[in-house]
Amino acid sequence: MSVTYPQGFRAAGVTAGFKDSGRSDLALVVNDGPSHAAACVFTSNRCKANPVLWSEQVIADGEVSAIILNSGGANCYTGAEGFALTHATAEAVADGLDISAGDVLVCSTGLIGPLFSRDKMMAAVPQAIAALSDQGGSPAAEAIMTTDTVRKEAVVERDGWSIGAMAKGAGMLAPALATMLVVITTDADLTAEQLDAALRKATSKSFDRLDSDGCQSTNDTVALLASGASGISPTEAEFTDALTEICTELAIALMGDAEGASHDLYITATNAASEQDAVEVCRAVARSNLFKTAVYGNDPNWGRVLAAAGTTNATFEPLTLDVAINGIWVCRDGVLAADPETIDMSPRGCDVTINLKAGDASATVWSNDLTHDYVHENSAYST
Amino acid sequence: MSVTYPQGFRAAGVTAGFKDSGRSDLALVVNDGPSHAAACVFTSNRCKANPVLWSEQVIADGEVSAIILNSGGANCYTGAEGFALTHATAEAVADGLDISAGDVLVCSTGLIGPLFSRDKMMAAVPQAIAALSDQGGSPAAEAIMTTDTVRKEAVVERDGWSIGAMAKGAGMLAPALATMLVVITTDADLTAEQLDAALRKATSKSFDRLDSDGCQSTNDTVALLASGASGISPTEAEFTDALTEICTELAIALMGDAEGASHDLYITATNAASEQDAVEVCRAVARSNLFKTAVYGNDPNWGRVLAAAGTTNATFEPLTLDVAINGIWVCRDGVLAADPETIDMSPRGCDVTINLKAGDASATVWSNDLTHDYVHENSAYST
Repeated sequence: MSVTYPQGFRAAGVTAGFKDSGRSDLALVVNDGPSHAAACVFTSNRCKANPVLWSEQVIADGEVSAIILNSGGANCYTGAEGFALTHATAEAVADGLDISAGDVLVCSTGLIGPLFSRDKMMAAVPQAIAALSDQGGSPAAEAIMTTDTVRKEAVVERDGWSIGAMAKGAGMLAPALATMLVVITTDADLTAEQLDAALRKATSKSFDRLDSDGCQSTNDTVALLASGASGISPTEAEFTDALTEICTELAIALMGDAEGASHDLYITATNAASEQDAVEVCRAVARSNLFKTAVYGNDPNWGRVLAAAGTTNATFEPLTLDVAINGIWVCRDGVLAADPETIDMSPRGCDVTINLKAGDASATVWSNDLTHDYVHENSAYST
Repeated sequence: MSVTYPQGFRAAGVTAGFKDSGRSDLALVVNDGPSHAAACVFTSNRCKANPVLWSEQVIADGEVSAIILNSGGANCYTGAEGFALTHATAEAVADGLDISAGDVLVCSTGLIGPLFSRDKMMAAVPQAIAALSDQGGSPAAEAIMTTDTVRKEAVVERDGWSIGAMAKGAGMLAPALATMLVVITTDADLTAEQLDAALRKATSKSFDRLDSDGCQSTNDTVALLASGASGISPTEAEFTDALTEICTELAIALMGDAEGASHDLYITATNAASEQDAVEVCRAVARSNLFKTAVYGNDPNWGRVLAAAGTTNATFEPLTLDVAINGIWVCRDGVLAADPETIDMSPRGCDVTINLKAGDASATVWSNDLTHDYVHENSAYST
């Protein structure tokens, strides 16, 4: 159900023909109101795809009536022709739904450089509109998949209102988002300002903590659309809590489906001087190719954890650190404290904890190991 | 010949038994003077190995009589016992040579955590002293190898004076050095201050531009020892030029022997607003696992070059960039400008040029692709 679980939304997923595989590749989600308040966060990559450049303008007034998403091409570094195609796509959706193109978000995902067919897009938009249904959440979630092996959908229910969401992304999950498209719908009645504040808080604790391979995409978008159809206005705290819950569930689902990964890494820094310090240390470990390959080899290489921590500016005394892997404190006060052979690395989940002994803040970053399959999938991606 | 090519130096390489392979693992280089001026640069990793902590004290007065280096163990995060072993090693060298322990640099390389045998070290130091010879450069270069497949030695000759060097390092070659040990000798007659200034300039343009896998070691050391035995004092500019030449030769040799690599990447940013901007862009590309895996698959994926550039704060207009791979300008003004199929990715060397159109500075960073063999070697390293 996902995005069509809350009241006031219809969705569809159809096949435009952008993908060689012949699988569905075009999703449309429409907010039937009564409210059309919305908020977005976009990639912080400065090289932004055309749909991101377009959608940044659409969201400026906090009103969105529909969002159209295609897989099979990023429409990034495709020049004026690419931007014109994004614009034309929004116009086609607007014409078919009798709304304004300025209220239509556009998202694309796929390879940078080549541009997908304008004719196919123009033929498929009316098909997507015709297929719109309040049961269309799952077909829409299916159509945005690229190298994803499973659909990512989630629902959070509260007293009289709910949030539904779909996501795609199975690689390039980096801080501040990456090749990740997420559409979140709610029938709660909130202003665009309230949605924006809640979305920034929720993503900062969820998607921004996901760092699969340190890379950052040109196309990432998280869109939050509110219909107000429940007639209920939760407090900002209540809504932020529910939104953080659904974003966290999806972030962990994205980690679990990262390209080629064989371990999910839960990297936690405790007793940090600040939450920012904790995130910095966790992210350094998450980006250490040496540690990530060791985990792939079921090697609890705590030395590589410390070597990664040592590249940061976080507050700590290097020789006092403790490190636990899967619950075993293998290093205490900077010295080997347990036989690494006693650590069971066979589960997919791998917990790494670094005790910084510098304060009382903490944070967790989610990542993956670096595997033969990662190398294979990413070396073969465009060929 | 390497470190024993300049006048005034003896060296040796012996087998202490730290390595399971039974290969030589202990190197000693002695400066017989008349001068003992020296300079060092160390890893900028805050988690420093015991020999680095020791050697930072030794170099403080700018005088060094000998340097002892072992492979088969990093002596890092080995606690008080590890520091005591470093100290005892320097004392043993000093006793055997009738010099001061405070003039003996110590370097170690290998796994973090476990400590190698004190007894083996104490037995091997006298053997190394007995083996000292003015022909000992190559045995010393052999003894510091770990996963290196070839000895790294170099000589630069000038009018009446010369520089010799040996290096080890085949992975973790990151900015500001990484699991890299380099000993450079010269018979030029220069003060410690002159050596320090020249070494910082030379390493900033050579070893600091080498970024194999983004990781940074706890043990990296570059030591420069000057005997003054030629009686010649070149100008600082002459010496810096020769030193930069030998450091660059060794840095490129290290790139060529990086663990598991199948391509050497020469990443250049041109027309940057500053050299720092150019280095930042090059380093971002060098650290993109997505680009590095694409290169491994012989895929000239220029979109991943731009996506990496977009994560930096360098001055440029994202949509105006040009990218060339192996001499073909595949992207001009942010749009596909040549058929990627025309780019020959089969040579080991791969040139990537990004024209930032923002100024007149430029820089090159050297890196490697990300391969199945990298994953294999680093997942199996300690097991």
